[in-house]
Amino acid sequence: MKRLLPIFAIHLLLLLATGAAAQSDPLPSWNDSASKRAIVDFVGSVTKEGSPDYIPPKERIATFDNDGTLWSEQPAYFQVFYLIDQVKRMAPEHPEWKTREPFASVLKGDMKGVAASGEKGLLEMLAATHSGMTSEQFADNVRQWLATARHPKTGKPFNQMVYQPMLELLNYLRANGFKTFIVSGGGVDFMRVFAEQTYGVPPEQTIGSSLKAKYEMRDGKPAIVKLPDINLIDDKDGKPVGIYQYIGRHPVFAAGNSDGDYQMLEWTTSGDGKRFALLVHHTDEKREWAYDRDSTFGRLDKALDNAKKNGWLIVDMKNDWKVIHPQQ
Amino acid sequence: MKRLLPIFAIHLLLLLATGAAAQSDPLPSWNDSASKRAIVDFVGSVTKEGSPDYIPPKERIATFDNDGTLWSEQPAYFQVFYLIDQVKRMAPEHPEWKTREPFASVLKGDMKGVAASGEKGLLEMLAATHSGMTSEQFADNVRQWLATARHPKTGKPFNQMVYQPMLELLNYLRANGFKTFIVSGGGVDFMRVFAEQTYGVPPEQTIGSSLKAKYEMRDGKPAIVKLPDINLIDDKDGKPVGIYQYIGRHPVFAAGNSDGDYQMLEWTTSGDGKRFALLVHHTDEKREWAYDRDSTFGRLDKALDNAKKNGWLIVDMKNDWKVIHPQQ
Repeated sequence: MKRLLPIFAIHLLLLLATGAAAQSDPLPSWNDSASKRAIVDFVGSVTKEGSPDYIPPKERIATFDNDGTLWSEQPAYFQVFYLIDQVKRMAPEHPEWKTREPFASVLKGDMKGVAASGEKGLLEMLAATHSGMTSEQFADNVRQWLATARHPKTGKPFNQMVYQPMLELLNYLRANGFKTFIVSGGGVDFMRVFAEQTYGVPPEQTIGSSLKAKYEMRDGKPAIVKLPDINLIDDKDGKPVGIYQYIGRHPVFAAGNSDGDYQMLEWTTSGDGKRFALLVHHTDEKREWAYDRDSTFGRLDKALDNAKKNGWLIVDMKNDWKVIHPQQ
Repeated sequence: MKRLLPIFAIHLLLLLATGAAAQSDPLPSWNDSASKRAIVDFVGSVTKEGSPDYIPPKERIATFDNDGTLWSEQPAYFQVFYLIDQVKRMAPEHPEWKTREPFASVLKGDMKGVAASGEKGLLEMLAATHSGMTSEQFADNVRQWLATARHPKTGKPFNQMVYQPMLELLNYLRANGFKTFIVSGGGVDFMRVFAEQTYGVPPEQTIGSSLKAKYEMRDGKPAIVKLPDINLIDDKDGKPVGIYQYIGRHPVFAAGNSDGDYQMLEWTTSGDGKRFALLVHHTDEKREWAYDRDSTFGRLDKALDNAKKNGWLIVDMKNDWKVIHPQQ
């Protein structure tokens, strides 16, 4: 018996160490508010075996919007900056753009002119900058842009303007057996370039708006070529449809920040059993931006009105978050 | 020192046990042929750290066709039996089908008449039996059918007509850090009902042909409703396109059995670095079926001609497999 004592001692130390780790705060950038407690309570109740709310690991599907939920979206969706920079980069090969809208306005830096071209103009620029090339060429362009482009207000690389508390939430859910997905209105090929490194979400768990594509030989090698036709608009009604097509399971957790996420949150919380939905409310004009009902990007109106009735958590960025963007 | 000996002894035993487990055969239903060795050599070389062929775990994407690759597909794709059974089940609500082709032929059991209606007839039956209901109702129908329907030749439930050697291959790849996907011409909603339980492939890793869908309120609850319009034909050129849209990564391993898999295998083996592709060749008319170039279902012609040139393994079902279907 005596010679077993050292082994017991080691076991005891290990147990204590594990206990300490389990008690360390998994969401250190969240203030100790009702929001944080609601999240921790939900995760605790659905992961505890024997709990009436228990959800088996394979059904722990968590879906996150990207723009305004995982990274900033002001003064415009970051992909809009990419689009504008691509128009400028490609302009020398397209002399006709000097006199053709909305390209002419982009090249003159006239954002009002760009806005005046409306959805039609945006789709034209999207076709010009997001299709015609192979999927690999597109990914290379995005990679190069992310490495060099800077946010107009903060001067930071765009992928540093992610929300530290949300990175912690993604990690916390994964550590508790959740499979995390991005379900965003943003372009899927655009997000897949950085989502794995930035968020720990692999390409096969990143869903977004997409163009059609075809398989063909280019220079004697097979390639996927991006076509200028819409495949999926992964916004509003399109989000539950995208979830159904790509994931094929009902999420049990969803996070968004705008009316574009309404149906995803509604679909998620309509499932049987315990479910969780949250909205990031941009309330911090000092550290980020403050906007909701009147914003062009990330308009939050109907979802804000119905959140309480629907049992959705509203995360108050100013009061719930200790830090916004990661401290470099 | 003396009191540490028992601990060393335990470690030694554990090491020996681990060694024994590693040496046990992961593919016991495969004969010890060149095919088996090619698979084991590939997996060994790409998973060994420091090997020039090493592939990091996150890039270990393996894609499998379903019909004729993971389960049988004779005398017709199993989903065709489902379709026919659904037409019969739904017939009382559709008296007009008695005189309308191809429904009339189905109800009379006239398979030649059904065949004569061609692709148009098939699409009409598909729309009638695979759309109009919610995704959950459809899954319920398939679940019920799988529990009761029997294969016309073997009398077995259809999901027992899977290939034991391929189940072992799926497990073997997963045990070596591969993420396994189904990429099939079959209907995605149909396969998602049984793929997780049967193959260990979850819904979010099951890709197939699909219909469009919409999100709407039904009886005051949100639902996904299947529409009668094609979203993706996940066959031939559509397979690499489906892989690109759903997975967003280049597979490093692909398995198929017909010309419908040609482009998936071509796309997979065109990637940089070590890649693997195999074709299941149906050569066993005693234990299963023997067919290739002239088969209506699972025609294997061009892929058979080019397999050697392309470096694809041809698995000879009769000589490479000890058993075909699982022994119940």
